[in-house]
Amino acid sequence: MIGVYDSGYGGLSVLRQLRAVLPRHDFIYLGDSGRAPYGGRNSDTILDFSEQCVERLFEEGCRLVVVACHTVSCVALRHLQRRYVPNAEAPRRILGVTIPAAEAAVAQSTGHIGVIGTTRTIGSTTFSLEIAKLGPHRVTGHAAPLLAPIVEEGWADTDIARLAVQRYVDRFEDIDVLVLACTHYPLLLPAFQKAVGPGVQVLDPSPHVARRLVDWLTRHPGFTEPGQGKLSLLCTGDPEQFRIHGEKFLGGELPRVQHIAEEQGRLAHRDRMQVVIGQVVR
Amino acid sequence: MIGVYDSGYGGLSVLRQLRAVLPRHDFIYLGDSGRAPYGGRNSDTILDFSEQCVERLFEEGCRLVVVACHTVSCVALRHLQRRYVPNAEAPRRILGVTIPAAEAAVAQSTGHIGVIGTTRTIGSTTFSLEIAKLGPHRVTGHAAPLLAPIVEEGWADTDIARLAVQRYVDRFEDIDVLVLACTHYPLLLPAFQKAVGPGVQVLDPSPHVARRLVDWLTRHPGFTEPGQGKLSLLCTGDPEQFRIHGEKFLGGELPRVQHIAEEQGRLAHRDRMQVVIGQVVR
Repeated sequence: MIGVYDSGYGGLSVLRQLRAVLPRHDFIYLGDSGRAPYGGRNSDTILDFSEQCVERLFEEGCRLVVVACHTVSCVALRHLQRRYVPNAEAPRRILGVTIPAAEAAVAQSTGHIGVIGTTRTIGSTTFSLEIAKLGPHRVTGHAAPLLAPIVEEGWADTDIARLAVQRYVDRFEDIDVLVLACTHYPLLLPAFQKAVGPGVQVLDPSPHVARRLVDWLTRHPGFTEPGQGKLSLLCTGDPEQFRIHGEKFLGGELPRVQHIAEEQGRLAHRDRMQVVIGQVVR
Repeated sequence: MIGVYDSGYGGLSVLRQLRAVLPRHDFIYLGDSGRAPYGGRNSDTILDFSEQCVERLFEEGCRLVVVACHTVSCVALRHLQRRYVPNAEAPRRILGVTIPAAEAAVAQSTGHIGVIGTTRTIGSTTFSLEIAKLGPHRVTGHAAPLLAPIVEEGWADTDIARLAVQRYVDRFEDIDVLVLACTHYPLLLPAFQKAVGPGVQVLDPSPHVARRLVDWLTRHPGFTEPGQGKLSLLCTGDPEQFRIHGEKFLGGELPRVQHIAEEQGRLAHRDRMQVVIGQVVR
């Protein structure tokens, strides 16, 4: 069973690609939708949340976790790997999305790569650092803090989305590839393609992430075995909202979503979502 | 000295009104901008953050704290009051914005009040509960999760903001007053006024909050004394960003902003903002 961790719904667009190339594998997806968005949060908070989520997936029996969220991959992946994968003999592994995305960008660009993502993804400069290891390409990053909320609101196919995408895209000059470094952005692909115009390729990294995972599994047998193509879903927010929003990202109906919530520093299962009305007193 | 606490910049629009009616009082404003927005967060997190912020203002010497944030006022005010103001002899007090806003709405409405705010503010139904204590008015609330981020992005005066406001306002039917139950929304006032059309009053509660505070101070002498009209600012996010964004809300230049950050469950002063580049390892 492969664990897939994201800050919310967006990573389901990555999971979709992973299931397409590994149809017989079982997946368990954990979306931290109750605490999303991560993009504007401070680093310590992102480290705390990501530890809780990865530990939950390990407890579910995963030996391999894919961090589908670009913010977590850019900020916290090395921390998670140092903490949970101390050496080459460690029984568990954690993979991210930044390096596959950087590799795909370098393969497609002849000079100047644009990267668009959350404030924290862009502020980390991790994409620039990873691309610099692969080639002499110039990299320009711009944060687009409104785009994930617009997609979460279900407004991807509105003039609001198109105007916002255009406004952010206009900040880039002379790029030939634009990396969508947030798992929400594939839902804005038509808006991006229109906004960049001809001559610029809009790159959704998730198919590349999926291909690199297949390579990795070939080179690292034993971390997961094909199963029955089952999918389990956990989320920290409202499971019903998760199910409704999630369909757009996964491209099909979702199975039952199990609610989990923070309890003394870990993510515990809950029988049902606690809906708080009025003032909360504890 | 009066403490004013908000999740970010927005409460500066309330502070502006407070300083207008109490020009000789000293104020200290704490904006939790590093952890904003609160609106989509779970209740436990909001309680934790609000405790830290209120405690920080008490440590600064405030005996009176005004919670300027509607999300915190709707969700956590009773909790804060029970924790820090256990009885009528307690040396400190905490006031919110919900009741003054509800009173102003009831005074202006002849029947059906609309309330627009964050997901958590609307989900709490606290406005309905408070309005029900004051009169037989019907109340309809709708969450507008994109509006605060649009204002924070500096896009209040764009077509994106106008289209989003229109889309949210269209969800209300037959209201005669629309309460702007988020401190960011006064910056969208022209868009709201245009969107509601004639016959609906758009209500910014902050002048009413200021007037009710003056009444309260008359009835409760000793919690604060007039000073020299000084203003101090603390924030958990980037102080320079806070200064730039804050000017729009305060309506004038901000004094130096001091950075504070979470450290072992409390908000400690920091000499300078820690900017993290690349992967974070701890």
